[in-house]
Amino acid sequence: MLQDLPFDIASLHAAYASGTDPRDVAAESFRRIEAAGDPAIFLHLVDPAAAAAAAAALPPFDPVAYPLWGVPFAAKDNIDAEGCPTTAACPAFAYQPSADATAVAALKAAGAILIGKTNLDQFATGLVGVRSPYGFPRNAVDPLIVPGGSSSGSAVSVARGLVSFSLGTDTAGSGRVPAALNNIVGIKPSLGAISATGLVPACRTLDTISIFALTVEDAWAAFRAAAVYDRADAYARPFDLAPLAAPAPTFRVGVPTPGTRKFFGDAIQAAAFADALDALRALGGEVVELDFTPFYDVAEMLYEGAWVAERYAAIEQMMRERPEEVHPVTRAIIGKAEGLSAADAFRGFYRLQALKRHTDPLIDSVDLIATPTMPTFYSVADLEADPVTPNSNNGTYTNFVNLLDMCGIASPLAARSDGRPGSITLLARAGKDAQIAALASALHRRAGATLGATGWALPAAPEAATVAGPGEIALVAVGAHMSGLPLNGELTRLGARFIRATATAPDYKLFALPGGPPKRPGMVRAEGGAAIAVEVWAVPEAQFGAFIRGVPAPLGIGTVTLADGTTAKGFICENAGLEGAEDVTRFGGWRAYLADLAAKTAAA
Amino acid sequence: MLQDLPFDIASLHAAYASGTDPRDVAAESFRRIEAAGDPAIFLHLVDPAAAAAAAAALPPFDPVAYPLWGVPFAAKDNIDAEGCPTTAACPAFAYQPSADATAVAALKAAGAILIGKTNLDQFATGLVGVRSPYGFPRNAVDPLIVPGGSSSGSAVSVARGLVSFSLGTDTAGSGRVPAALNNIVGIKPSLGAISATGLVPACRTLDTISIFALTVEDAWAAFRAAAVYDRADAYARPFDLAPLAAPAPTFRVGVPTPGTRKFFGDAIQAAAFADALDALRALGGEVVELDFTPFYDVAEMLYEGAWVAERYAAIEQMMRERPEEVHPVTRAIIGKAEGLSAADAFRGFYRLQALKRHTDPLIDSVDLIATPTMPTFYSVADLEADPVTPNSNNGTYTNFVNLLDMCGIASPLAARSDGRPGSITLLARAGKDAQIAALASALHRRAGATLGATGWALPAAPEAATVAGPGEIALVAVGAHMSGLPLNGELTRLGARFIRATATAPDYKLFALPGGPPKRPGMVRAEGGAAIAVEVWAVPEAQFGAFIRGVPAPLGIGTVTLADGTTAKGFICENAGLEGAEDVTRFGGWRAYLADLAAKTAAA
Repeated sequence: MLQDLPFDIASLHAAYASGTDPRDVAAESFRRIEAAGDPAIFLHLVDPAAAAAAAAALPPFDPVAYPLWGVPFAAKDNIDAEGCPTTAACPAFAYQPSADATAVAALKAAGAILIGKTNLDQFATGLVGVRSPYGFPRNAVDPLIVPGGSSSGSAVSVARGLVSFSLGTDTAGSGRVPAALNNIVGIKPSLGAISATGLVPACRTLDTISIFALTVEDAWAAFRAAAVYDRADAYARPFDLAPLAAPAPTFRVGVPTPGTRKFFGDAIQAAAFADALDALRALGGEVVELDFTPFYDVAEMLYEGAWVAERYAAIEQMMRERPEEVHPVTRAIIGKAEGLSAADAFRGFYRLQALKRHTDPLIDSVDLIATPTMPTFYSVADLEADPVTPNSNNGTYTNFVNLLDMCGIASPLAARSDGRPGSITLLARAGKDAQIAALASALHRRAGATLGATGWALPAAPEAATVAGPGEIALVAVGAHMSGLPLNGELTRLGARFIRATATAPDYKLFALPGGPPKRPGMVRAEGGAAIAVEVWAVPEAQFGAFIRGVPAPLGIGTVTLADGTTAKGFICENAGLEGAEDVTRFGGWRAYLADLAAKTAAA
Repeated sequence: MLQDLPFDIASLHAAYASGTDPRDVAAESFRRIEAAGDPAIFLHLVDPAAAAAAAAALPPFDPVAYPLWGVPFAAKDNIDAEGCPTTAACPAFAYQPSADATAVAALKAAGAILIGKTNLDQFATGLVGVRSPYGFPRNAVDPLIVPGGSSSGSAVSVARGLVSFSLGTDTAGSGRVPAALNNIVGIKPSLGAISATGLVPACRTLDTISIFALTVEDAWAAFRAAAVYDRADAYARPFDLAPLAAPAPTFRVGVPTPGTRKFFGDAIQAAAFADALDALRALGGEVVELDFTPFYDVAEMLYEGAWVAERYAAIEQMMRERPEEVHPVTRAIIGKAEGLSAADAFRGFYRLQALKRHTDPLIDSVDLIATPTMPTFYSVADLEADPVTPNSNNGTYTNFVNLLDMCGIASPLAARSDGRPGSITLLARAGKDAQIAALASALHRRAGATLGATGWALPAAPEAATVAGPGEIALVAVGAHMSGLPLNGELTRLGARFIRATATAPDYKLFALPGGPPKRPGMVRAEGGAAIAVEVWAVPEAQFGAFIRGVPAPLGIGTVTLADGTTAKGFICENAGLEGAEDVTRFGGWRAYLADLAAKTAAA
């Protein structure tokens, strides 16, 4: 029975609700690892007895208080877990950590059960997954293609259903490329959202722990649990992570112009990306083509600029004293730092700063950016022939992301025409993790892609959260600010996101105010009122001032009571401003009034 | 006549209003420079005929449209001005720029007249002002003490009344220390506020052009004119600079604990700082003592950490090919970069980031920080004996400021007991330039200090601006949010500042709403209303959302019309919420109502 249980969190929690024992799930995870027959996925397994003890020590099943209750997970072996060695895939570097990494501890506190530590491109340097002295995990979908890296074992372990989710890391794309290669979801969080305490640094200023899971919902649940603000990590930043909501009904999505898309001759990948754009349009996206040249210019800086010196700084002693212990490809890459001066480093920063003047307006012109996750697929044989070029090409759409302080998510799409996994990456400014995840979930669901290499079906969509996050203010829009109406752009430009359509409590009167265009409604609570159709939007708190500047008299922002009895900030109207206004309460909402007006105009 | 004319802008503009010719003022500036008899202040003077032509080409006198109309100024010789060589005090480095630096062009566009280019510590490396192959300017107050640097000539030229204001630069403190040594005002803007296009870099990531003037008002006028957002400067950031307002009536000011104040044995300077704290208290300051150790740790990084490599990068070719052309002290300092690797640079950033974890909570615990501008005074003879240590000590209270992205202002206080100039430096997070300048003006005025070495009296205070700045939203407070009332802290905690007390248009009704404490008013526009006493506060736009969260029904934020016919955001009230409310319009304002209530309670 248990051996058929899908390991997505919804299925697991349903099983737990029916009495399944988490010790049995942990044991099943170890059984599957054994059955998988690939010793290069994990570098170290937790003692099964210890995992069973952790399962037995869980509090009573409560998936609200413990969103990862009884959920087996793996961690990339450059992340500390107490009781396991940390190798970073370099035997000579290995050490025994005295404590869990902060992220691992946070996941355990949310109920997750650590199963093991996974293989990687040594020192997280690589996007292919074959640069490990421990051998390399076979790609879960097709053993001839590379597993992707550097988080190879973390991606494969999830894609094969051995664990529910895993921690990777992502500096250049190590949390996204392996996701695409193994048909799973990869969240590349905003830098600083997940603590780096207990992480072996690659480039400390550009590193983040990342999340692999079978579904966006699972990845989001693990991300929220892992993202504990950590003052001990000097680069940590506090982010308010909202529950996953519905994606905005309309949005502007930037994509590379056809002339600046790179597929290295892979016409099938090009066609798959064109299909992905159709999917984005179908979900309400206005596709805006951006000249991607400046993004590629930034991407080149990751290995050509000064940042390789961070990798060197992280393992300087070994590079100086025992270079032969470092993988030869890795050593050649990191060794380039030996010729870089501090002045060179600053020249690199100056160039990046100058390039941001070109990328900033592009990023600001859209709500998010969509790219292929990688331009094409490389086989293990390709990497044996040339260990560097395919790796570089794999980073085409990922290398610039952390340098530009963006967040990202790689999400499966329908398989390509040749059966290889489809994938798209959504990118946005740091802090917009929730917005791109919401859209990624909709894309994944629309594609109906199966989960990794498991064949398991995507679980039914959970009800999207209908509340604003802690860094947002819920705003009740009554009239022209609702989606599709003339002033909606005033909200979306400020990063506001759609939450839900609902109605007010049944005692509001709606008036069409004199003036315009656009016509504006005035809503007041009054006897003889009705329930008025409204929309709730979540506005970033820091943008609320900018929004309120544009609200003219007699309108104001007060408190509106909704049909379910909750209240939220929303449009109110001074009674003094109702002179000459038309009572349109009978339409039950502004859209219905506008439709009636349009019909009358057409008839006239 | 003209030779007695104070060169502060108020005096100059009064003269222009009475018909003085700006050509004569320019000529007077040249005459004073000649009469000053110190050839080391200026490295290059503009051709007097060209200055006269610039004066003649000014549009008709309009000090509103041209706030620097006819105002003579000087620029440090590491800032380009068309027609003048730029030397950075290194003859071998000199070049003829093809255009004005963006800041110089902006000042000219505001009506200012460039008179000449001033001496400096070579390549802006130093805080003493004696590291120049062109000799050094004599301190304006006492020729035995150093003039201060690196902006030595710019400070002295203003302190001696030769020009009205000048441009310096400030990386380590070069815009503040010379101000204190010459009894004038030095604004060290938020990084990126003034364009660095046309500036010879010292540390590109930490440089800013700075402003010297005789009064805070003059420095602020020049700063506002110079601070044009410049996309061509990759490090430029847009700041909304408000007109100078009154300082907040109360504020929290952080100062070093007695045990972490450094005066290097100068008891007079220590006593002067204690007096300054009394002045801050007298102006409404709550003095909060902060352990300053982490700020000193940051300060040490400026020359000990990686940033010296920026100075090297700026003149690498000369350091490699013609090191003998570089001042020996400067060469020794900058040459240290030759041993620094890119990995060293990153280690420096990591350490700074870690130190910020200690300084951030201190900075966030107060509205601003006040320090001495420098710990003590050094003589020219001291520097001849040891060219490095006194220079380092001079940076005690300045070196950390740009590394921590703070803005600062050095302002004269009353002379010390030994006659040497008194000075204080106010510091705050980038973007709070207007707040610290407003307080500096009040401190300067309270001290009644004379202007530089001129003996001119401080002009009467201009009326403080009574409008919100562009990054602020003016908010009409009607009730408990007014100063001294229970909810005022909700405004001040968010960085809001008091603008003015006024009244509404004469058609508002004021109600005391049921509920509380605190009692809340509801104000509605209605027939039979009256003018209601209110206060206008300026709330930072980014904080407005946080503010509005706390506004309960039936209140809201809408638009209020004031007695002078202007409108502003302000408290409005839903009519539906007036049930059970008491009409208190007859009191003409919430304070009067509360006073009546208190009197009744006392009587009962």
